[in-house]
Amino acid sequence: MADPRYFQRQGPFRLAELAAICQIELSDPAAADLAIVDVAALETAGPGQLSFLDNKTYMDAFSASLASACIVERRYAAQAPDGMVLLHCDQPYRAFALVAQAFYPRPRPLAGISPAATVDATATLGPDCQVAAGVVIAAGVEIGARCIIGANAAIESGVILGDDCIIGAGVSLSHCQIGNRVTLHPGGRIGQDGFGFAIDPGGHVKVPQIGRVLIGDDCDIGANTTIDRGSMRDTLIGAGCWIDNLVQIGHNVELGRGCVIAAMTGISGSTTVGDFVAMGGQAGLAGHLNIGDGVQIAAQSGIMSDVPPGLTVCGSPAVPIKEFFRQVATLRRLARQQLHRGGEEQ
Amino acid sequence: MADPRYFQRQGPFRLAELAAICQIELSDPAAADLAIVDVAALETAGPGQLSFLDNKTYMDAFSASLASACIVERRYAAQAPDGMVLLHCDQPYRAFALVAQAFYPRPRPLAGISPAATVDATATLGPDCQVAAGVVIAAGVEIGARCIIGANAAIESGVILGDDCIIGAGVSLSHCQIGNRVTLHPGGRIGQDGFGFAIDPGGHVKVPQIGRVLIGDDCDIGANTTIDRGSMRDTLIGAGCWIDNLVQIGHNVELGRGCVIAAMTGISGSTTVGDFVAMGGQAGLAGHLNIGDGVQIAAQSGIMSDVPPGLTVCGSPAVPIKEFFRQVATLRRLARQQLHRGGEEQ
Amino acid sequence: MADPRYFQRQGPFRLAELAAICQIELSDPAAADLAIVDVAALETAGPGQLSFLDNKTYMDAFSASLASACIVERRYAAQAPDGMVLLHCDQPYRAFALVAQAFYPRPRPLAGISPAATVDATATLGPDCQVAAGVVIAAGVEIGARCIIGANAAIESGVILGDDCIIGAGVSLSHCQIGNRVTLHPGGRIGQDGFGFAIDPGGHVKVPQIGRVLIGDDCDIGANTTIDRGSMRDTLIGAGCWIDNLVQIGHNVELGRGCVIAAMTGISGSTTVGDFVAMGGQAGLAGHLNIGDGVQIAAQSGIMSDVPPGLTVCGSPAVPIKEFFRQVATLRRLARQQLHRGGEEQ
Repeated sequence: MADPRYFQRQGPFRLAELAAICQIELSDPAAADLAIVDVAALETAGPGQLSFLDNKTYMDAFSASLASACIVERRYAAQAPDGMVLLHCDQPYRAFALVAQAFYPRPRPLAGISPAATVDATATLGPDCQVAAGVVIAAGVEIGARCIIGANAAIESGVILGDDCIIGAGVSLSHCQIGNRVTLHPGGRIGQDGFGFAIDPGGHVKVPQIGRVLIGDDCDIGANTTIDRGSMRDTLIGAGCWIDNLVQIGHNVELGRGCVIAAMTGISGSTTVGDFVAMGGQAGLAGHLNIGDGVQIAAQSGIMSDVPPGLTVCGSPAVPIKEFFRQVATLRRLARQQLHRGGEEQ
Repeated sequence: MADPRYFQRQGPFRLAELAAICQIELSDPAAADLAIVDVAALETAGPGQLSFLDNKTYMDAFSASLASACIVERRYAAQAPDGMVLLHCDQPYRAFALVAQAFYPRPRPLAGISPAATVDATATLGPDCQVAAGVVIAAGVEIGARCIIGANAAIESGVILGDDCIIGAGVSLSHCQIGNRVTLHPGGRIGQDGFGFAIDPGGHVKVPQIGRVLIGDDCDIGANTTIDRGSMRDTLIGAGCWIDNLVQIGHNVELGRGCVIAAMTGISGSTTVGDFVAMGGQAGLAGHLNIGDGVQIAAQSGIMSDVPPGLTVCGSPAVPIKEFFRQVATLRRLARQQLHRGGEEQ
Repeated sequence: MADPRYFQRQGPFRLAELAAICQIELSDPAAADLAIVDVAALETAGPGQLSFLDNKTYMDAFSASLASACIVERRYAAQAPDGMVLLHCDQPYRAFALVAQAFYPRPRPLAGISPAATVDATATLGPDCQVAAGVVIAAGVEIGARCIIGANAAIESGVILGDDCIIGAGVSLSHCQIGNRVTLHPGGRIGQDGFGFAIDPGGHVKVPQIGRVLIGDDCDIGANTTIDRGSMRDTLIGAGCWIDNLVQIGHNVELGRGCVIAAMTGISGSTTVGDFVAMGGQAGLAGHLNIGDGVQIAAQSGIMSDVPPGLTVCGSPAVPIKEFFRQVATLRRLARQQLHRGGEEQ
């Protein structure tokens, strides 16, 4: 179970309540009143706990699990242990996420402004915000309702935040406008100057960066991630994007809705990314590219040209993923032939 | 136009004033008194605005632009729309940068020390510095004139800053000396211990890191970038270097003048880099190397050996860029031949 | 010598004292009383200074060094300059590290809590802690003896720190428990939410992250490095791990003892790493993998599958290092053959 030192568990809930939360019909209506006290992984779950099976590589753990209830696709029902109540659905992980949120809801603000915060007299805060010690809120900032601002965050002049945002410790925000229900994890840097200058042997000349960063609703942005403001237009992050830690997003980048960007990926300036694009860790995109809707970019890929919608690419420079693995196999085979012919490559 | 919530535009300027700033002769001297109110990109510029053409892929936008004036190479004059006043020069982007700086100058300090800053009694600050809330300035720090120190920055004991520096929110500085007109974007970490220890199965043994970081004049260093201090000598950043976000620079690295280092590049300890070296994003350099003047390193390259002056390299391990693209083409061709011969690689 | 502005040197020491510290017998017992005032690199060392030779590429510097004493393997004794006193041992760098620590010991706390720190009444601190200005320590935090907490660090509720820890400026800690003698360099982010959510076109659904981060004794964790807390179990960092700057460690990762992870490496969620594993810079590991004890992963490698104990791997996707260099050589040869046959690849 979650360490009560850090997490306040809600519940218990009747199984029928949990089923309603994720809109699942119980396989056994007689179990509606079963008391569920917690969620847990299949291996560690015990009586009174609910788990899920999302990946059939965990089938053995499922069959051996002591969980009282489990969210699972209908086709795996036969492998369930005796006595386990099943909640059948097609997206078990999504359903489990909703149930887990019931036990461990998003933090709610403990309304109040720390006397050790510095809030400019011209800044406005909506009702029920929580502002920690060391926070600095500059002139003209507008913050919505129920936001949580973590210790030592710095919100520079004119920044706008929507409702129900969570700003982590040590975050800095400038020249940006952020939607509702956005989470920024600690150390994120939003809105600083982009990397814009004219190369000159006599001294590179800075180009003023006069755009902003606009972030849509329901985004989640990782620790120590950096998003630069636009040069002469805005850097745009669409609603519902999930961006992991240590990601770099250059000036004028536009991300569509629902993109998922794993840690340490970098997107160079002025590249436009469609909706629901997924990028693996440490991928790199050159500047001024167009990446179509639904593109998937494998980890460590290097994208040097436009990618049409729906394609999955891999490698540096990236190619369609089947071609990537064919290249890998070809090179592996040729190198082994070389070995058998003797070490002439040395 | 730039959002006035975040940017205070100067001007308007007479076109002759702007031409003088970038030392350009007007193509049409009669236009000297034309009032220019702002700068803008070709696509969005309108009457009274000045733009530039630097890349001929934007030729259509140039020909269709409503900008009143445009900085452009002389050879493209014929493609200009009727009525546009042209400022001819060989480096249009550089000239535009200077003009844009006239409209949007570098921030000037609002002199004063926030009562919510903590400044040690033995620290000295030059005239007209701006020190935000939450800043901590430790014993013996020396700060020049007209510096701007952002919210919650931490400047540890003995650090020296020149004149006209801008230190972003949440930056931390220790064991370093920084020149004039240096900008450090938020979250930069300068001067912490390098990664130095003796490997030992009984417990790795730390080697004290007793060097410093010295940063020359006119450098620009990105958000969340880390520069470690030297182990037994200093880490050196030459004058006029532009370093992007999330870059790692190891102990004892020496960068020459005017280097340009894109985001997420890492330079391992004790590598020496010449003047005007350019590195693309996510490049990685091994330690103890010598990189010659004017070398260009493509994005995602991995540098495992010295690079002579003037070379452009790519790949991991890096090779001269022509060879890299020849390798890419060769492998692509071989993999396709393989495909046509059937799937034997599986 | 180290700049006295930043470093307080101890000593001088008698050579016999230093030899005792690293358990070495002096080659010349008559030198026991030689006064050593400092450590230095071979090239810069002078009379009264001690140096070391660990890498025979520095043999010329050794033979020309003016150091009064030098730690060196016995087999290189003949190359020493006249008059240099030698301290023979098999691990010269380790021995030098111990001697250097005598001259430049780990910082000791200047006990006291800054009046500009904010410490919750329910937090407990052991004796002789040093807490800088701007530090925020939340409810229920427990800090051991002799810890140094740097300016503007944020320690969130319930965090536990052992004795003799050094927490750098601007670090943020939450949901974590940290052992003794751990150093966290500036800007590290420990314990924030992992990157856990169920993909859904209607809006990705967050999975509450209800684990912790547990860090063993004697770890050293770099600037701006991020370590996410576990989802339903804990993220574990074994004792004696050295982790460089800008490293990303995902939720549920388990690192064994004594691992060494160079800058900008990323380890994806739920990957388990054995003891004494070494990773070069910018390496990337996929999730849910098992990496055996003693594995060595070269810089920029991409690990897509389990690695058995003791293997050294390189490349993306990674292969055993001999195979990697064979592949590199094969491709180089084929591309050159292609060149000689004419530019048909274009």
